Amino acid sequence: MITTTTSIRVRYEETDMMGIVYHGNYFTWFEVGRVRMLEEIGLCYRKLEETGFRLPVLEANAKYKSPARFDDTVIIKTYVREKPRARFRIEYELFCDDRLLCTGHTVHTFTNLNGQPTRPPKHFLEKISEAIDPREYAP
Amino acid sequence: MITTTTSIRVRYEETDMMGIVYHGNYFTWFEVGRVRMLEEIGLCYRKLEETGFRLPVLEANAKYKSPARFDDTVIIKTYVREKPRARFRIEYELFCDDRLLCTGHTVHTFTNLNGQPTRPPKHFLEKISEAIDPREYAP
Amino acid sequence: MITTTTSIRVRYEETDMMGIVYHGNYFTWFEVGRVRMLEEIGLCYRKLEETGFRLPVLEANAKYKSPARFDDTVIIKTYVREKPRARFRIEYELFCDDRLLCTGHTVHTFTNLNGQPTRPPKHFLEKISEAIDPREYAP
Amino acid sequence: MITTTTSIRVRYEETDMMGIVYHGNYFTWFEVGRVRMLEEIGLCYRKLEETGFRLPVLEANAKYKSPARFDDTVIIKTYVREKPRARFRIEYELFCDDRLLCTGHTVHTFTNLNGQPTRPPKHFLEKISEAIDPREYAP
Repeated sequence: MITTTTSIRVRYEETDMMGIVYHGNYFTWFEVGRVRMLEEIGLCYRKLEETGFRLPVLEANAKYKSPARFDDTVIIKTYVREKPRARFRIEYELFCDDRLLCTGHTVHTFTNLNGQPTRPPKHFLEKISEAIDPREYAP
Repeated sequence: MITTTTSIRVRYEETDMMGIVYHGNYFTWFEVGRVRMLEEIGLCYRKLEETGFRLPVLEANAKYKSPARFDDTVIIKTYVREKPRARFRIEYELFCDDRLLCTGHTVHTFTNLNGQPTRPPKHFLEKISEAIDPREYAP
Repeated sequence: MITTTTSIRVRYEETDMMGIVYHGNYFTWFEVGRVRMLEEIGLCYRKLEETGFRLPVLEANAKYKSPARFDDTVIIKTYVREKPRARFRIEYELFCDDRLLCTGHTVHTFTNLNGQPTRPPKHFLEKISEAIDPREYAP
Repeated sequence: MITTTTSIRVRYEETDMMGIVYHGNYFTWFEVGRVRMLEEIGLCYRKLEETGFRLPVLEANAKYKSPARFDDTVIIKTYVREKPRARFRIEYELFCDDRLLCTGHTVHTFTNLNGQPTRPPKHFLEKISEAIDPREYAP
């Protein structure tokens, strides 16, 4: 399993008149977690796009447990449990200190720049697979 | 069942570098559908808050079928199938012409202004129930 | 002078914890006014891009007079006073009923899809010029 | 003069179909710079609000020099040159490496939680004044 952690500070712009973060903004934070997760295992999402691949979102789901507020430091934990195939599932848990804010997952697919489904680049699959199960790839 | 329809035009701001609408923005469109649905059955979400109630989101889910693009007119169909109890579930289907863009649902609860769970106002429940099953309420 | 009017309803997502609309969102509403203004004089911004032109923003300015709130209907008045040259200036006034919310302006330039400055398409200039001073173009 | 520096990473959500960051998002980055500037001189904007004060935006202005792109690290330099009086002016310069992306400024006022203009808290003024001209406050 891949487990990475990053964090963001809540922006005033992300709050709404309830005084808490608008629920839709958590999906942007999932994106931040996803991009940093790829980075941490040696993959750059910007380069992935520059080489002709995209990872559009097929599904996005969130369960809200406790509100995030302006200026909170939100810990974004990002998990990949299974090797990507036609679909690539990524899970998220968001915390403020030890308080669970939100759990969620997104499902992605690989497309080319025209939006046609395509196989992910070999390099990408290898890096992910190696990060999911490092023992399999040990010398 | 309550079925209402509204529409929005896609804003440039809502697109991303993929050239299509960023997936997180669909949750804002669900909100537009939800507020108009309430309006159509005689309920004003702003007034609901002014009288001390809120409808925070407990769950938000979307499945993306086809991309929306800048300037598209997006039809937002909003459905309520069941009377709200502790939880209030609302469903959405988004179309561009006859093309299905996205399906999704949100689950809400009722709280007071301090975020404590509370029973929804009687007036609110009645209006929703009447709209779900008009025959029950016929004279 | 070109003067067009459109309107939007304030979304919950656009509010912040001050209970009013976040100031940055007015620039998105300026965009809505701009796109509808072009539409009203027979120009489609999407088509403009499809034919290889863009109108990036060089300057954006807003003065906030009175807050907009959730569910308000905001009237967006959009003005063009001068024919576009290297720069294209567009002005905005936003109202809620008769209450002035915000005045502002944006300055744009024309570029090709690679971001290089370019002359606007002849068709575009003609339509704008005709709309600014219809008498000049009368038969 | 107060000069502080912070940075953000550009989110995919912040880009638009031009492939660059949507111009309105720079105002959110100005906010990030502003909040960190206050923090750096010992003031917490969240606490300021909790004690009954707000700093709404009266004016927001930006000049765009060069585009920011997804995943760029954007350096936000924030400046205060003058002590706040009825109005509080804050300036911004945004860079990607040595490339200037944007300059801008916002003008704020102090209000109470009902939106009425008010004098800023003494503590706030002192901290700002001391940070603007440390020599004046040296023992």
